Amino acid sequence: MDKFIGFESTYEEAQLVLFGIPYDGTTSFRPGTRFGPAAVRQDSFGIETYSPYFDQDLEDYKLCDLGDIELTFGNAARVMDTIEAFARPVAEAGKKIFSIGGEHLVTYPVFKAVFEKYPDLAIVHLDAHTDLREDYMGEKLSHASVIKRIWDHVGDASIYQFGIRSGLKEEFEWAKSHTYLEKFTANTLPEIVKQIGQRPVYLTVDLDVLDPSIFSGTGTPEPGGLTFNALIEALKAMKGLNIVAADAVELAPHYDHSGVSTAVACKLVREMTLLML
Amino acid sequence: MDKFIGFESTYEEAQLVLFGIPYDGTTSFRPGTRFGPAAVRQDSFGIETYSPYFDQDLEDYKLCDLGDIELTFGNAARVMDTIEAFARPVAEAGKKIFSIGGEHLVTYPVFKAVFEKYPDLAIVHLDAHTDLREDYMGEKLSHASVIKRIWDHVGDASIYQFGIRSGLKEEFEWAKSHTYLEKFTANTLPEIVKQIGQRPVYLTVDLDVLDPSIFSGTGTPEPGGLTFNALIEALKAMKGLNIVAADAVELAPHYDHSGVSTAVACKLVREMTLLML
Amino acid sequence: MDKFIGFESTYEEAQLVLFGIPYDGTTSFRPGTRFGPAAVRQDSFGIETYSPYFDQDLEDYKLCDLGDIELTFGNAARVMDTIEAFARPVAEAGKKIFSIGGEHLVTYPVFKAVFEKYPDLAIVHLDAHTDLREDYMGEKLSHASVIKRIWDHVGDASIYQFGIRSGLKEEFEWAKSHTYLEKFTANTLPEIVKQIGQRPVYLTVDLDVLDPSIFSGTGTPEPGGLTFNALIEALKAMKGLNIVAADAVELAPHYDHSGVSTAVACKLVREMTLLML
Amino acid sequence: MDKFIGFESTYEEAQLVLFGIPYDGTTSFRPGTRFGPAAVRQDSFGIETYSPYFDQDLEDYKLCDLGDIELTFGNAARVMDTIEAFARPVAEAGKKIFSIGGEHLVTYPVFKAVFEKYPDLAIVHLDAHTDLREDYMGEKLSHASVIKRIWDHVGDASIYQFGIRSGLKEEFEWAKSHTYLEKFTANTLPEIVKQIGQRPVYLTVDLDVLDPSIFSGTGTPEPGGLTFNALIEALKAMKGLNIVAADAVELAPHYDHSGVSTAVACKLVREMTLLML
Amino acid sequence: MDKFIGFESTYEEAQLVLFGIPYDGTTSFRPGTRFGPAAVRQDSFGIETYSPYFDQDLEDYKLCDLGDIELTFGNAARVMDTIEAFARPVAEAGKKIFSIGGEHLVTYPVFKAVFEKYPDLAIVHLDAHTDLREDYMGEKLSHASVIKRIWDHVGDASIYQFGIRSGLKEEFEWAKSHTYLEKFTANTLPEIVKQIGQRPVYLTVDLDVLDPSIFSGTGTPEPGGLTFNALIEALKAMKGLNIVAADAVELAPHYDHSGVSTAVACKLVREMTLLML
Amino acid sequence: MDKFIGFESTYEEAQLVLFGIPYDGTTSFRPGTRFGPAAVRQDSFGIETYSPYFDQDLEDYKLCDLGDIELTFGNAARVMDTIEAFARPVAEAGKKIFSIGGEHLVTYPVFKAVFEKYPDLAIVHLDAHTDLREDYMGEKLSHASVIKRIWDHVGDASIYQFGIRSGLKEEFEWAKSHTYLEKFTANTLPEIVKQIGQRPVYLTVDLDVLDPSIFSGTGTPEPGGLTFNALIEALKAMKGLNIVAADAVELAPHYDHSGVSTAVACKLVREMTLLML
Repeated sequence: MDKFIGFESTYEEAQLVLFGIPYDGTTSFRPGTRFGPAAVRQDSFGIETYSPYFDQDLEDYKLCDLGDIELTFGNAARVMDTIEAFARPVAEAGKKIFSIGGEHLVTYPVFKAVFEKYPDLAIVHLDAHTDLREDYMGEKLSHASVIKRIWDHVGDASIYQFGIRSGLKEEFEWAKSHTYLEKFTANTLPEIVKQIGQRPVYLTVDLDVLDPSIFSGTGTPEPGGLTFNALIEALKAMKGLNIVAADAVELAPHYDHSGVSTAVACKLVREMTLLML
Repeated sequence: MDKFIGFESTYEEAQLVLFGIPYDGTTSFRPGTRFGPAAVRQDSFGIETYSPYFDQDLEDYKLCDLGDIELTFGNAARVMDTIEAFARPVAEAGKKIFSIGGEHLVTYPVFKAVFEKYPDLAIVHLDAHTDLREDYMGEKLSHASVIKRIWDHVGDASIYQFGIRSGLKEEFEWAKSHTYLEKFTANTLPEIVKQIGQRPVYLTVDLDVLDPSIFSGTGTPEPGGLTFNALIEALKAMKGLNIVAADAVELAPHYDHSGVSTAVACKLVREMTLLML
Repeated sequence: MDKFIGFESTYEEAQLVLFGIPYDGTTSFRPGTRFGPAAVRQDSFGIETYSPYFDQDLEDYKLCDLGDIELTFGNAARVMDTIEAFARPVAEAGKKIFSIGGEHLVTYPVFKAVFEKYPDLAIVHLDAHTDLREDYMGEKLSHASVIKRIWDHVGDASIYQFGIRSGLKEEFEWAKSHTYLEKFTANTLPEIVKQIGQRPVYLTVDLDVLDPSIFSGTGTPEPGGLTFNALIEALKAMKGLNIVAADAVELAPHYDHSGVSTAVACKLVREMTLLML
Repeated sequence: MDKFIGFESTYEEAQLVLFGIPYDGTTSFRPGTRFGPAAVRQDSFGIETYSPYFDQDLEDYKLCDLGDIELTFGNAARVMDTIEAFARPVAEAGKKIFSIGGEHLVTYPVFKAVFEKYPDLAIVHLDAHTDLREDYMGEKLSHASVIKRIWDHVGDASIYQFGIRSGLKEEFEWAKSHTYLEKFTANTLPEIVKQIGQRPVYLTVDLDVLDPSIFSGTGTPEPGGLTFNALIEALKAMKGLNIVAADAVELAPHYDHSGVSTAVACKLVREMTLLML
Repeated sequence: MDKFIGFESTYEEAQLVLFGIPYDGTTSFRPGTRFGPAAVRQDSFGIETYSPYFDQDLEDYKLCDLGDIELTFGNAARVMDTIEAFARPVAEAGKKIFSIGGEHLVTYPVFKAVFEKYPDLAIVHLDAHTDLREDYMGEKLSHASVIKRIWDHVGDASIYQFGIRSGLKEEFEWAKSHTYLEKFTANTLPEIVKQIGQRPVYLTVDLDVLDPSIFSGTGTPEPGGLTFNALIEALKAMKGLNIVAADAVELAPHYDHSGVSTAVACKLVREMTLLML
Repeated sequence: MDKFIGFESTYEEAQLVLFGIPYDGTTSFRPGTRFGPAAVRQDSFGIETYSPYFDQDLEDYKLCDLGDIELTFGNAARVMDTIEAFARPVAEAGKKIFSIGGEHLVTYPVFKAVFEKYPDLAIVHLDAHTDLREDYMGEKLSHASVIKRIWDHVGDASIYQFGIRSGLKEEFEWAKSHTYLEKFTANTLPEIVKQIGQRPVYLTVDLDVLDPSIFSGTGTPEPGGLTFNALIEALKAMKGLNIVAADAVELAPHYDHSGVSTAVACKLVREMTLLML
């Protein structure tokens, strides 16, 4: 299958543009998120285009799937540049962006492209992990540092983290004065949504924010996460936000023998897309 | 193992008769429910005959396991006839029927046999999917059309659907005037039970009504479903009903690497059987 | 991936046309060959276009991949008609045909389309199974009867079977007077090639002719088969033949956890295609 | 990896001593818990030493990992003696003990060593199963009898069971007058904690007390269990108890294809250890 | 399925009696052969009753399948007694015996029952391992000692070993003066057959004698083994022998994800049975 | 397990030093060889220290296992430096080196360290792939270029390649004038051994030179390779060579569900080590 279901418009006419970023080159534990975008596209044909959650249908919008960015492995800095160069014209054209990872580091270059267009950008971050390390064994470009890298650009009072349940003690300490961080759950999202108001938003969902009971297909599963319904509620709470770009990352299909994690990712791509429209 | 645990009576003495229907011939996505009945029988020896939910024991009843119906593939209409012919004498003899699928289409011929005996039959349907298509790519005998086929016989005000969370927009629309449909959950079952009163009931449980966190072993997993405990509560709510036939369908063991889905199916066969007695 | 590697020409310019037939609707034991064509296309990007066996390169020919035929399940007769209708214009146009199964029954409708064009057609059949049953539990359209169905058209002295090691005693008996059948191996192929001479040939390879050590990904594995190298030798022996159509069937990716069987199928598609050019 | 993460002290300086008991020699259904301790150690490097639940860090304590006890199979009685002899000096030295199973029977010999030191020992038991059989097909040393064997020593009013949802009717009956047993959940733990007061406690967690949605990697999965968060709450409720020994048993990695169950076990070893400190 | 295909006679009329011995209680590495007999019975329905190797058909003989012996775990000595007691009356009645393991130790008690009837018994042993240890970590009843245990009864000049490629240096040394041992292959079997002449023979095949390319489903795979065809040749070489009992042991279905090993075992049960008739 | 079986000497006393290089950072298709060294160490306890092929025992030599080099991902050039720095003192000390990959690129930095010590070094290379690309999509440090990188140092008449069966047409062409390349097999190794004479040798075995029937656990399986016995013969043919360093690379345990590939790798580490002593 060469397009996500319902994404049949041309780039020119599209309101929202989707692409895959098959990169897992800094993953330290179990690699394989490079296979995420292809798996999501293929199994998207097992779901419907209609969402009973939002009562919206993908077929009622202009949506374009550009396929995957071609990337090599072995040199993360060069890969970051390639991704950013791919995303920049889409952001500049004022089209909404949805990208599918790949590991979480791929958020960084897309963020940079979007931030150039929207300097007032706020970040909503759902994840099991803080991702706030300054570096990982000396590497500053790492999946474990991606939110810290983004903070380097946006600074304090712009990053909102939910569902976090794993990290170094120092990361949790650092977050207290630099980001908004809700441990374990996303219950305070409705208040944060009000606070964000009409600032443009980049929504990044590391799918491991979900409990591994429903999302086992990821490199570093962390029990104690959100149920699928809790994540749907979180999305609904964001319905009024001005989300200009979003991503869903860290699906590793090789740890998803039953196909359930891929089905979850497919549905979330549908729901997150509809949320943005 | 050639019998489900605790099913050791002869056909003649049995109050309730169980059989498997190993058919998945119209499955459009991932086949394999043909292996469901054998898996359930074999792993039933890993559970106890005693239910701490109903405080009842299978060993206190007269229960018979007739094994599996022998079926071929390639001609759905002929298969439907074979199943109906198998079920009819059991229904006519006034014995309760429990069948294990197989795909959901196998409900249709058993329903027909039971409906002949009980023309006032009501249908309680737990499922992730509406199953209300008029046809699937031209085929009227399809797992995606089974409830619509049943509606052809019973008409309006006889079908009660719970847990539904996937379908075409048109199916949800159609349901509004022809069936009772609760989206996502089964919270209104207690009220419906009162409404049904003493009408004879066919209870059909597509096991994918469960959340795939606890039931991954199925062809089309749909996140956002019932927990195991929620399904147990639904069964308890039905305790007063006059259930004359029931089935549990859509277990596909090949997607159940850990054996958990099969264990779930085994327990539900036990609980659903005890509910009927 | 939407094309087999190296198959980048248009239909109009193509010498050879490839398509997938994702059908397993009469499979009696373990289904799943419906996923064969998609798996072969996707993993074809893991092989090279150059064959060190034939010292030929796919890139030097005009090859077209038409994708998969859209099929439903539940009615084998109708499916046969759809496939035949798809293949007929390709055969009539004098283009060579390569199809990827799917179960072995899909050979039958393609054969019919080709036979119409070449009434003098000979069949070279590599398989673990005789496939010579008159019917399978009453169904004449069955994977276990496909060569018998072809014999209904071509009659004696036109079918050459190799590698056969499983069947009813009656099938082996029947073959003695109606087909040429070499048990276990394909050692006599060079002589048969001479005998066939310039008759047009349909080459059908049930991939389970290979030993399951190298090809486990199939519904009914039969130990004692050809090694990969023996099959390559068999292909080389056929280099002079006038092969007008060929197929490779019975890859079931769900039983191929390591991906080796799919890699084997990819290479054989490459080698069989180059053999025909 | 030869040590559980953060367990880097010598035996002499350690407050708490951890060891693995790779034994599954009486498992009647699906064996494989012998691989539990090695899997937990290896994947412990995927978690952090800091717990956001207890706001404690393993690195702030003196913890020692003695590795696995060397055991053979074929003679359960001899194995029990070997384990008890291994555990006794640790208990006598007044060090806290944490052991990782293996099947549940391995709790018995460690209990015996600890009971010698603390004759007033109370047992807190979280499990899906009663484990109260007098024997299993004639064998008194069985995973299905382990709590009954412990009762032989401590008698009534010393055993507290939670989460139980499977057993013979007789076992549930017997428990009514000999142990405290809460079916399905652990909601009454806070009250029981008060009742236990300062008695020394042996805490034994059969990991199958968890719902198989989050813990599929076990021999006999029982749906309807505790969520991960519910188990964390239960641990928090025990924070004041004087736990002198604890274990986590019945992880069978072969049924944990995604690694989620092993990740759960790793986290519980961390949380249970921190609870004891 | 409750009988191996083609085994449909009563015990009384049977020439040959088959039973399963689902025991793996002394397995030191990867357990799971307890599931072997059930897997073989179930998948036997995927093969034919006719052998093209021997041109014989199971349906032409009187064959009985007694099912599996019921066994517990935890006490190997008691299990040995149970098996021997089961096998003795069959041996005494002069019926041929075929047993399916289970681990290799299960050969010992059946051997004892047969040896009582035939004191002149010779042993033909195909295996990857010597199995000649005096004990395994102190246990004399061990899968690694089974041939040594048999030697305790039959002494020198009665044991013929083939395909051996793993063991302690001491075992290979000891074999030089006490058994006949061919390393790696079974090429000298024809000569040995002549030497054995009309002595009654117990044929024991540890299926890991096969190369793991064709038989991965076993606890301790050893590359460099026999191909399936080489094993068939070995069986053909034994056609004249007076085989009074035989077994096929060490299939562990959990390591056989594709089902190929089980298919191999099924065929070997068919071929070995036909060899004895 | 923290040491390969039989590797129990200190670094100081060791004749031969083993270490793991868990790197797969440039793998373009299926990653996972980073898990190779740990898998080999752990399963090495399932094999014996005695080789019936060479009639040698690991326990008779001074062998040291240094564990794995700690590496990050994301910057291949830096990783190469780390590996080279690790290997250099071992080479300088005149100890023999055996390394376990990881992907094939890890051969390059070890080669560099060894080449510094032995400027007359010859390379014996067994592999399915040519590995002679100048670069892979612009990256010169790639698993697909590793032999070309080595050629940059040693030039013509120093590289001997065997078993090669996949590559670009250009690579095969280039090899004709720059390396010795035997397609498909290693039959000419005995002659090459004579030709090499007493030159110091680096032996690099990409385990995918084996046929995937016996070695499926690798990223890019290529059918038509060496049997295990053919590889053993190749090793025997090299017995007289002065091998100063060797490696076995490209085991990816995640594609080795049965454990057979890991068992093969363990045995080859044993045999290759004994060959060097």
